[in-house]
Amino acid sequence: MMVTAARTYGVRRNSGRNGMSSRQPFGANKPRRDRQGTDQPERQHGSQQGQRPQRSYQGQNGFSHSGQRSRGRKRFHQASSTTGAQEADVLRIIPIGGCEEVGRNMTVFEYGNDIIILDIGVQFPEEDMPGIDYIIPNTKYLEGKEDRIRGAIFSHGHLDHIGGAPIVLEKLGNPPIVARPLTLALIKHRQEDYKKGTASKLKIINVKNLNDVVQLGAFKVRFFQVEHSIMDSMGVILETPNGTIIHPGDWTMERDEQGVTHLNYHHLSQLPRPTFLLLESLGATNSKRHGTYQEMYNNLQTILSQAPGRVVLATFSSQVERVKWILQASSSLGKKVALDGYSMKMNIEISKELGYIDIPKGVLIDIKEIDRYPDNKVVVVCTGAQGEDRAVLNRITVGDHRFVKLRKNDTVIFSSSIIPGNERSIQRLKDNIYRQCDNVVHGDLMDVHVSGHGTRQDILDMLDQVRPDYFVPVYANHYFLKEAKNLAVQHGFQPDRVFVPDNGSVIEVRKDGVKMLEKKVPSDYVFVDGLGVSDSQHIVLRDRQVLAEDGMVVVIATVHSKTGKLAQNPDIISRGFVFLKDNKEIIEGIRNKVKKLVIESDPLTWTDTNQIKNEIRDKIGQFVLSKTDKRPMVLPVVIEV
Amino acid sequence: MMVTAARTYGVRRNSGRNGMSSRQPFGANKPRRDRQGTDQPERQHGSQQGQRPQRSYQGQNGFSHSGQRSRGRKRFHQASSTTGAQEADVLRIIPIGGCEEVGRNMTVFEYGNDIIILDIGVQFPEEDMPGIDYIIPNTKYLEGKEDRIRGAIFSHGHLDHIGGAPIVLEKLGNPPIVARPLTLALIKHRQEDYKKGTASKLKIINVKNLNDVVQLGAFKVRFFQVEHSIMDSMGVILETPNGTIIHPGDWTMERDEQGVTHLNYHHLSQLPRPTFLLLESLGATNSKRHGTYQEMYNNLQTILSQAPGRVVLATFSSQVERVKWILQASSSLGKKVALDGYSMKMNIEISKELGYIDIPKGVLIDIKEIDRYPDNKVVVVCTGAQGEDRAVLNRITVGDHRFVKLRKNDTVIFSSSIIPGNERSIQRLKDNIYRQCDNVVHGDLMDVHVSGHGTRQDILDMLDQVRPDYFVPVYANHYFLKEAKNLAVQHGFQPDRVFVPDNGSVIEVRKDGVKMLEKKVPSDYVFVDGLGVSDSQHIVLRDRQVLAEDGMVVVIATVHSKTGKLAQNPDIISRGFVFLKDNKEIIEGIRNKVKKLVIESDPLTWTDTNQIKNEIRDKIGQFVLSKTDKRPMVLPVVIEV
Repeated sequence: MMVTAARTYGVRRNSGRNGMSSRQPFGANKPRRDRQGTDQPERQHGSQQGQRPQRSYQGQNGFSHSGQRSRGRKRFHQASSTTGAQEADVLRIIPIGGCEEVGRNMTVFEYGNDIIILDIGVQFPEEDMPGIDYIIPNTKYLEGKEDRIRGAIFSHGHLDHIGGAPIVLEKLGNPPIVARPLTLALIKHRQEDYKKGTASKLKIINVKNLNDVVQLGAFKVRFFQVEHSIMDSMGVILETPNGTIIHPGDWTMERDEQGVTHLNYHHLSQLPRPTFLLLESLGATNSKRHGTYQEMYNNLQTILSQAPGRVVLATFSSQVERVKWILQASSSLGKKVALDGYSMKMNIEISKELGYIDIPKGVLIDIKEIDRYPDNKVVVVCTGAQGEDRAVLNRITVGDHRFVKLRKNDTVIFSSSIIPGNERSIQRLKDNIYRQCDNVVHGDLMDVHVSGHGTRQDILDMLDQVRPDYFVPVYANHYFLKEAKNLAVQHGFQPDRVFVPDNGSVIEVRKDGVKMLEKKVPSDYVFVDGLGVSDSQHIVLRDRQVLAEDGMVVVIATVHSKTGKLAQNPDIISRGFVFLKDNKEIIEGIRNKVKKLVIESDPLTWTDTNQIKNEIRDKIGQFVLSKTDKRPMVLPVVIEV
Repeated sequence: MMVTAARTYGVRRNSGRNGMSSRQPFGANKPRRDRQGTDQPERQHGSQQGQRPQRSYQGQNGFSHSGQRSRGRKRFHQASSTTGAQEADVLRIIPIGGCEEVGRNMTVFEYGNDIIILDIGVQFPEEDMPGIDYIIPNTKYLEGKEDRIRGAIFSHGHLDHIGGAPIVLEKLGNPPIVARPLTLALIKHRQEDYKKGTASKLKIINVKNLNDVVQLGAFKVRFFQVEHSIMDSMGVILETPNGTIIHPGDWTMERDEQGVTHLNYHHLSQLPRPTFLLLESLGATNSKRHGTYQEMYNNLQTILSQAPGRVVLATFSSQVERVKWILQASSSLGKKVALDGYSMKMNIEISKELGYIDIPKGVLIDIKEIDRYPDNKVVVVCTGAQGEDRAVLNRITVGDHRFVKLRKNDTVIFSSSIIPGNERSIQRLKDNIYRQCDNVVHGDLMDVHVSGHGTRQDILDMLDQVRPDYFVPVYANHYFLKEAKNLAVQHGFQPDRVFVPDNGSVIEVRKDGVKMLEKKVPSDYVFVDGLGVSDSQHIVLRDRQVLAEDGMVVVIATVHSKTGKLAQNPDIISRGFVFLKDNKEIIEGIRNKVKKLVIESDPLTWTDTNQIKNEIRDKIGQFVLSKTDKRPMVLPVVIEV
């Protein structure tokens, strides 16, 4: 396996920022000029690796209004894809998860004999998947190809990008993992949680500097700065002989109050062509103005300084910078901060170890100690803003927290957005908190959160700056991907240069053309629950759904095999169906029906009990349906003694 | 039971509008002057009925900035509530449902020996209530008081206001029902669906004219025009000797593009005081501008006239006026309209019968016939915009509809808001439709719906116009009610004049004071599922939740009662737990454990099987947990033969 971590550039630009927050320092740095400077020589290095059709695509892009360039583009696009080119020369882009949902993001890139992976996330289960812990990407396509996997790159440390790593990496023979320091630390932590003592065995390529270049087989991998709601997020560039993939991971464009952005992606328009922009498009229907960090911090400052009692602030545990800000602001106000929630404490601990966060002396207290301070000197920062049952905020709210009970003059802040699907849980949590405190602050009322996802305007700006040849919206539900396409097309992008993939779609890039294949690779749900990973979970899940809906009835008939007579009255057990104490006629009805069925079938003629069991299942099912309008699962047990 | 439908006014004002749409005609009608004219004489009539403290409260309200009136108000408010007044003189306001959720709206008003009810709605089940059809208001408080119920008033015909009527009215001895014609027609229809032939037995007081006055026991009931998303919505005024209740039901303030409202509620400030404004407050956090009907109709007109193929428009079946508009617009464009969905067809049929809707000749076609017309001449109006499984739009989308399959050039319009809780289903539906058609239009992209609920601004305008003495936000989750309170208080309303009730709260209005009691009346969920209404459903539901989460294991041990030996190997049946074929060791483990437990317990010493069953349940539960990290329901069956 050829894996190198070549550092091409002697001069480390922006070295003061390596691994640090993407946020504040950027306004002044004019990254556009920087990037052009670094990209230019690299393009020439890159050309040693293969026959890039550089002349035709130089300066190309997918916009139809760039008139003078249309000839070359057209030729590339319309060329036959049934060329005699060896499979070795084909680049395949295969999003395995994350194109039909928010979560389980994973994309496979294949060129000749080399495979690399971007992100291995989890998806949280839908409401019709009871008992499922989470869903991981389906890696059936990679079975048997393990020795061709050159590495797995992680764009950032959110669970929908790294959560599936421990299970999937193990399945795939533990390829090297490539990420920035915080992302690596979070992956290692998750690995340890999965199997103790295994984190140290991970093969790691630490992207300490975004100018690092990593060669993974035929792929020359480079990185670029993006803005997202967790430190150490990075965009990824994959140069191959057939074209260059640009993938910002999750991203937004932070803007000041005048709407001016901090970052500029123009440097990505200078990469070897054709370029493919794979763009996370969750904000494709969001035409709102961005909240700014300045507004958010101003609002939080006001709340912190004016709160009549304690402040309880719930946010995503990955919002390390926000927590850092709160620690500093609280310190200046003479307040103490208690962190609570496993992932919250863990993320801050990891960030501290990495030197990403500097905690003012004396500000941090243990959650156990909060009652030693006056209420208006206490700030609790915790997890659970999504209404998760077992997270801190919910435990506080339902009175299950050992050290924090809500008080009338507490101020509770939801510094988070609502992840789609969590609306009901959050509603329930809010109702409960409003019942106990007078001061509740959330996004409906005040900007106390800044989203980490680009809006429609951001998507347009990204397209204008990167000017890719091909646009592939990814990392959201299909509906958002289609709207991203519509947006691009309305903006002048050629519709046949946009590919909207499903999970498992294969985009094939040959020297003479690009197409998305009809055939898809497997991408069915792979469920993880208590026992581990299983494909058979589909069956188990279907049973759970039936049981949840109408419950079940177990019917037990005991038959003397010698006489063919019933040894005793049939036993009827039911759960989740109807309350049998209130419905004695039904139970009697079932019992009589079973007796009749068994006797009429003449047990002495049975070869096995399958037929009578089927009959009981059908007839009792019909009987119960006619009496109750319900379809419980009927489980017949016939015992011969 | 004293029930009269007195018509106080000889002159029927606005008679051309009785029962008609609240929408267009209002701009020109200056309702404010009208109402003052009609309210004035009525107040004097009303004073025959009891000692209203009219002098002290004349012109009063709950705003603390109305300085010169503060003396009288203060006296009323601070007076002792432990006066010797007879219980007969007490007015009780008891919201039984609808104050902790959106749905099962029902409020009880009690004065002396007389009880009246406003609205009897259903609530749709939460995701953790599998198999439940719906939830109805808990009427335990009214048990034994049936002969004191003078009537049930229905503000409008939405299911969260009328859906519980058939079951609850029957329980309550079928009191007379009071509503406008469309509401009555919808209640009758639901009654027939519940029990055939019973609708004609309903005792009906038809509010044909909003100037009608209905005397229900001590309550003088009057009505006023409101705007909401179903025809024949009305506000209700209940005059009692202790004060006047003002309840708009569900409401909004329609505005033109300049933000000017069509209706004005100033006339309600002239009612006998003290006045209590019970205000539906679902929009208490909504600070957006209203979309206007003009914008919506313009957008729909553009879509209808430009659609390249068929148009499929999904909306709430109660949007009769919108359907009416579509029928007219389609007719002018030479298009045909097919209605689909039981409730959609039923609502239009009922509205036609009542003369509320006039269908242009030849425009309506049967859904079966759509393929006889060119695609761009076909409009389908259907139910299912909330992503409901069995509704038309979902059936079309999943390919389950007999006559409609989606085509690439169809245009699908979601002319609806998202009812909280339906986000995931709608997301799934949209994803599915975007996969099949190029043109999908919904609220994220264009105003194709106007909401029927008031915004923050509307709530403030309502308070300013009505100037109530007391403000009681209702008909939404607690969180919205609290925010409505906060809004009012920020606006100058006295906090101690606002009551935020829970379900079951009792607001007691005595001549000398108002308070909300600590003690509540019962308001627990009453579930309706296949079998009917049952309190025991709580137990059944808990079982379903356990079954859904981790499934179940049935363990069957058959013992020879004479020898104390196992007659055969124990049977193990499991569903929804783990896939047993993949987990043979677990099944073997359970089997061996059961054998051991039974033999060790020495069956010859058993008096009954309860002890051994408990032991099997505990020990197998522990064993399974240790092996799988799951807690399935363990059901032990011990058969002695």
